[in-house]
Amino acid sequence: MATFNESAAGVYLITVTPFTSDGALDLDSTDRMVDSYLERGVDGLTILGIMGEATKLTGEESRIFAGRVIDRVNGRVPVIVGASAPGFAPMRELTLSVMAMGAAGVMVAPAPTLRTDDQIVAYFDMVAETLGADVPWVLQDHPVSTGVQMATSVILKILANCPTCVMLKHEDSPGLAKLSAIRAASARGEVRRVSILAGNGGGLFLPEELSRGADGAMTGFAYPEMMVDVCRAHAAGDVDMAHDIFDAYLPLARYEQQTGIGLAVRKHIMAERGMIASATVRRPGPKLSATDIADIALLTRRQQRRLREIGQPS
Amino acid sequence: MATFNESAAGVYLITVTPFTSDGALDLDSTDRMVDSYLERGVDGLTILGIMGEATKLTGEESRIFAGRVIDRVNGRVPVIVGASAPGFAPMRELTLSVMAMGAAGVMVAPAPTLRTDDQIVAYFDMVAETLGADVPWVLQDHPVSTGVQMATSVILKILANCPTCVMLKHEDSPGLAKLSAIRAASARGEVRRVSILAGNGGGLFLPEELSRGADGAMTGFAYPEMMVDVCRAHAAGDVDMAHDIFDAYLPLARYEQQTGIGLAVRKHIMAERGMIASATVRRPGPKLSATDIADIALLTRRQQRRLREIGQPS
Amino acid sequence: MATFNESAAGVYLITVTPFTSDGALDLDSTDRMVDSYLERGVDGLTILGIMGEATKLTGEESRIFAGRVIDRVNGRVPVIVGASAPGFAPMRELTLSVMAMGAAGVMVAPAPTLRTDDQIVAYFDMVAETLGADVPWVLQDHPVSTGVQMATSVILKILANCPTCVMLKHEDSPGLAKLSAIRAASARGEVRRVSILAGNGGGLFLPEELSRGADGAMTGFAYPEMMVDVCRAHAAGDVDMAHDIFDAYLPLARYEQQTGIGLAVRKHIMAERGMIASATVRRPGPKLSATDIADIALLTRRQQRRLREIGQPS
Amino acid sequence: MATFNESAAGVYLITVTPFTSDGALDLDSTDRMVDSYLERGVDGLTILGIMGEATKLTGEESRIFAGRVIDRVNGRVPVIVGASAPGFAPMRELTLSVMAMGAAGVMVAPAPTLRTDDQIVAYFDMVAETLGADVPWVLQDHPVSTGVQMATSVILKILANCPTCVMLKHEDSPGLAKLSAIRAASARGEVRRVSILAGNGGGLFLPEELSRGADGAMTGFAYPEMMVDVCRAHAAGDVDMAHDIFDAYLPLARYEQQTGIGLAVRKHIMAERGMIASATVRRPGPKLSATDIADIALLTRRQQRRLREIGQPS
Repeated sequence: MATFNESAAGVYLITVTPFTSDGALDLDSTDRMVDSYLERGVDGLTILGIMGEATKLTGEESRIFAGRVIDRVNGRVPVIVGASAPGFAPMRELTLSVMAMGAAGVMVAPAPTLRTDDQIVAYFDMVAETLGADVPWVLQDHPVSTGVQMATSVILKILANCPTCVMLKHEDSPGLAKLSAIRAASARGEVRRVSILAGNGGGLFLPEELSRGADGAMTGFAYPEMMVDVCRAHAAGDVDMAHDIFDAYLPLARYEQQTGIGLAVRKHIMAERGMIASATVRRPGPKLSATDIADIALLTRRQQRRLREIGQPS
Repeated sequence: MATFNESAAGVYLITVTPFTSDGALDLDSTDRMVDSYLERGVDGLTILGIMGEATKLTGEESRIFAGRVIDRVNGRVPVIVGASAPGFAPMRELTLSVMAMGAAGVMVAPAPTLRTDDQIVAYFDMVAETLGADVPWVLQDHPVSTGVQMATSVILKILANCPTCVMLKHEDSPGLAKLSAIRAASARGEVRRVSILAGNGGGLFLPEELSRGADGAMTGFAYPEMMVDVCRAHAAGDVDMAHDIFDAYLPLARYEQQTGIGLAVRKHIMAERGMIASATVRRPGPKLSATDIADIALLTRRQQRRLREIGQPS
Repeated sequence: MATFNESAAGVYLITVTPFTSDGALDLDSTDRMVDSYLERGVDGLTILGIMGEATKLTGEESRIFAGRVIDRVNGRVPVIVGASAPGFAPMRELTLSVMAMGAAGVMVAPAPTLRTDDQIVAYFDMVAETLGADVPWVLQDHPVSTGVQMATSVILKILANCPTCVMLKHEDSPGLAKLSAIRAASARGEVRRVSILAGNGGGLFLPEELSRGADGAMTGFAYPEMMVDVCRAHAAGDVDMAHDIFDAYLPLARYEQQTGIGLAVRKHIMAERGMIASATVRRPGPKLSATDIADIALLTRRQQRRLREIGQPS
Repeated sequence: MATFNESAAGVYLITVTPFTSDGALDLDSTDRMVDSYLERGVDGLTILGIMGEATKLTGEESRIFAGRVIDRVNGRVPVIVGASAPGFAPMRELTLSVMAMGAAGVMVAPAPTLRTDDQIVAYFDMVAETLGADVPWVLQDHPVSTGVQMATSVILKILANCPTCVMLKHEDSPGLAKLSAIRAASARGEVRRVSILAGNGGGLFLPEELSRGADGAMTGFAYPEMMVDVCRAHAAGDVDMAHDIFDAYLPLARYEQQTGIGLAVRKHIMAERGMIASATVRRPGPKLSATDIADIALLTRRQQRRLREIGQPS
């Protein structure tokens, strides 16, 4: 399988967590979801992120879900586990537990209380120490959810300080300039090169991020084949085809990125596609209206038509 | 001209404020910009909003710019002026001044410190009193910039309390459900019907907002013809054509909506199109890189091609 | 023992969580701390709050600590457990676990994402359902930590909707007017009377809160006897003595309320007083400087002198 | 008069802005307030700060008020003017205008949008350029109102970059460690020594700040003599007397620091003392209840009694 290290590339999909209609963990759907992602060609899975409703699970449920995913994947691709936590003790507990199950690494975002450059750098020194010398990890840069803005110089310092950090999930906005700056610093030999996967919601800037030097995508979307196909076309040098594919999915990807109901949209489509049994989002969470569902149906039909027009499977 | 009242419909464009390359107000470009907007068929102009860099102008500059726009428009369409201010005295001062020049009304967003429902309702009671009985105004609902979330019930109460509020600039997200709920309340006779213009950035949800009962759009984009053409196709009942036009512009509209550099992107394209002389954003503000500009060029070429494919002028 | 219900009164102390100098749970100090609080006459204990470093504990550690406190208290006073959590499943898991151990109830603050009145009311409907019909709970109103402002009308609605909510931990600021308004609503028969304990940091407004109708205090301070003695003097009708005692402790209480280092100050004093073995705050957390410690020593000496002057034990 | 430069020391009082009972600028009270402050021995005045309701004034009112204060002071002490603004053009406009009237300098806080260290440093480079080479200014460090946390290293860099910055208004919390660190850096010759005035609300940490090397206070309180007397006792080496005076005023100073109603409390007391004619706070602003006013009366009586006990004028 592809190894989770500084050379990782392709699509690491942010998975949802399937629930039954009464809100219980749905482990059968978990298997089905894993299979459907792998069939579509993803190169890794990232579980227990924000879109995985991680904070709504008990500790026990988190471990059961992680174990089920890792077992089902069975070594075919790396599985990364979201381990951000308000304290280091729970971060370490979850990390030890999932690494023992066979996870390839974990992902950590800065604590929302951090403000100054030095505070952020010091925090990740403690994170690296907490995770231990054997656990490779992803640095998640997502100011919209954390409120923490990490300057390029801060990210470079974290990479210099923490050899176990092998990947950046890049989802700052405006992030294209930052992505270019990090790659330029590597090119000048100022910092080792790590894997950078584009994380902006639903891959909404994926073609541009790939052109700036991203190695792929780490994000979620009800049509993971979009990310896979865009990355492959781009890797094959066909930038125009990468854009054509991206543009065909963009209206629906945009609709799925609505604040608040985005996850409900994603799970609705996944249930429609048979990837999970129920679209249930755990409370407190939104429900789609009939009009929302009609919107999605219209956008899906238009997407299929457009994909056929450009000669893509739909 | 179209009247600015509860029946207003179509596209009220959020204008930029043109500066010369050394950062001075560019009044010649102001004329040119007004002309170029009106030639493209907009139904109104909204000046001195966030994207108009209002807070970077002196009081005197605000009055000069407003006067120039109003003079150039010369009654052809209504001109609305952003009047949000941390205090009521400056709000009143600017309002009196621009109404005397011929503005059709003003736009006010909730103060960022407001939290509870009652605080918000009470605030707009004071706003209405401050503006006076003769000044029609737009209620701007933009939680991303204000941090204030107004429940549907709060908006209905403001409309009930303040007869001079004639329009809602709807840019909450998720906002489609709120838009549907407000229209349903009017349909049930619970509240008078006001104009609702869709304000989500760059019109990124315009087709869906029109289907939910929006009367048009109040937002900005370097291609205002997108909003005009989408609204016209939709009004003519051709929803599919509305989507086709929208989708053709969407990749560039999305690029223009990047946090931080969005306004620089918009002004760059407007300068390229000859709508203003310089793309200058006043300090502190971003500058585009050569790579950003190359991105825009690629997206613009693709947009033109796609517009031709669907039989639209490009 | 005093029952934890709508009639609860006196001082419910917010406890710290003692750690050894290498950061492990210190269960011997836990016993010593419990004893020292009870000897000083507190009427209840509240554990695993913000000042109890709850988010820095693993699930297992939380249960061990709660069990140890409850065992040591051995029914002499009610023990309340902080159960705020980003999701309902972990909230329910912790609640069931500590209630089975003998906790008297739990405490829940609004989730930081809540904004509108209806969102807050709906959230606590779900909280009450999650906790179940047999678990009495404290509503924590602490906007400084949550960012959520609950209007008086919202609190009254929560009390009306949720019969299992028996106590309000009142720590809004400005809160005196809110406290008066809630008591007035009860007096008018608009809402059942619940216990209100004053929670403003270190009891910094305790005399005024008691005069407005608070039944006591729920907060922390290295000198819990301050709250006990102020409440007793006030209950005995000697408002002036209540103020005298309060004023004697105020300079140090103020020093302990510094953002960021407050908990380190509290634990330092508690270690000095022999209530816990080590002043350790778990990482990431502050350390006191020699100058900080000198400040505390000076304030403590002055406090003792002043207490003697007014005839209080010091 | 005392010069406003890097050696400034003593008490620079943050003034209120007096309004008549119908909300108009009260220029007679402005004169009376200036006189009453100067009679109590303050060393400077700072106008148009947050507690001066600056954002509620029109540009014209700001200039009229500043002019009146400066005229009345008539060169006896330096007058500093709050010039923070969302844009540089209005900042420059106000600065030029008040400097021409005879202001000694201006005060600027970081824009609330700033996050990373480099952004903050770059911002103040632009501020210094905007103000010009002849305008000395105060750097205001008040994270509670701005949301911007400036690391010690950032402040040192600003002082290095901007020779016209001559004073720090220190009101971070926890700020004692920062204050010590800045003084230590000066002592080591790493940065020039500037004046540091303690700004924490109402001087609530004044004795400790003076011990850490603050040159005085820049804050407001209805009893400015507290700050004057504490600073004088401290400067005379009588730290214990400084604390005695401080402690006598602390219960009322604390009451005046309540979020939301603090300014109303301050203006109420000032009106009671005859320093201004009306306690009016401009809308939107709080009103005191009868119970609030009774609280203040009780605290004032106790304060007078305690001042007599320690041999101070009351």
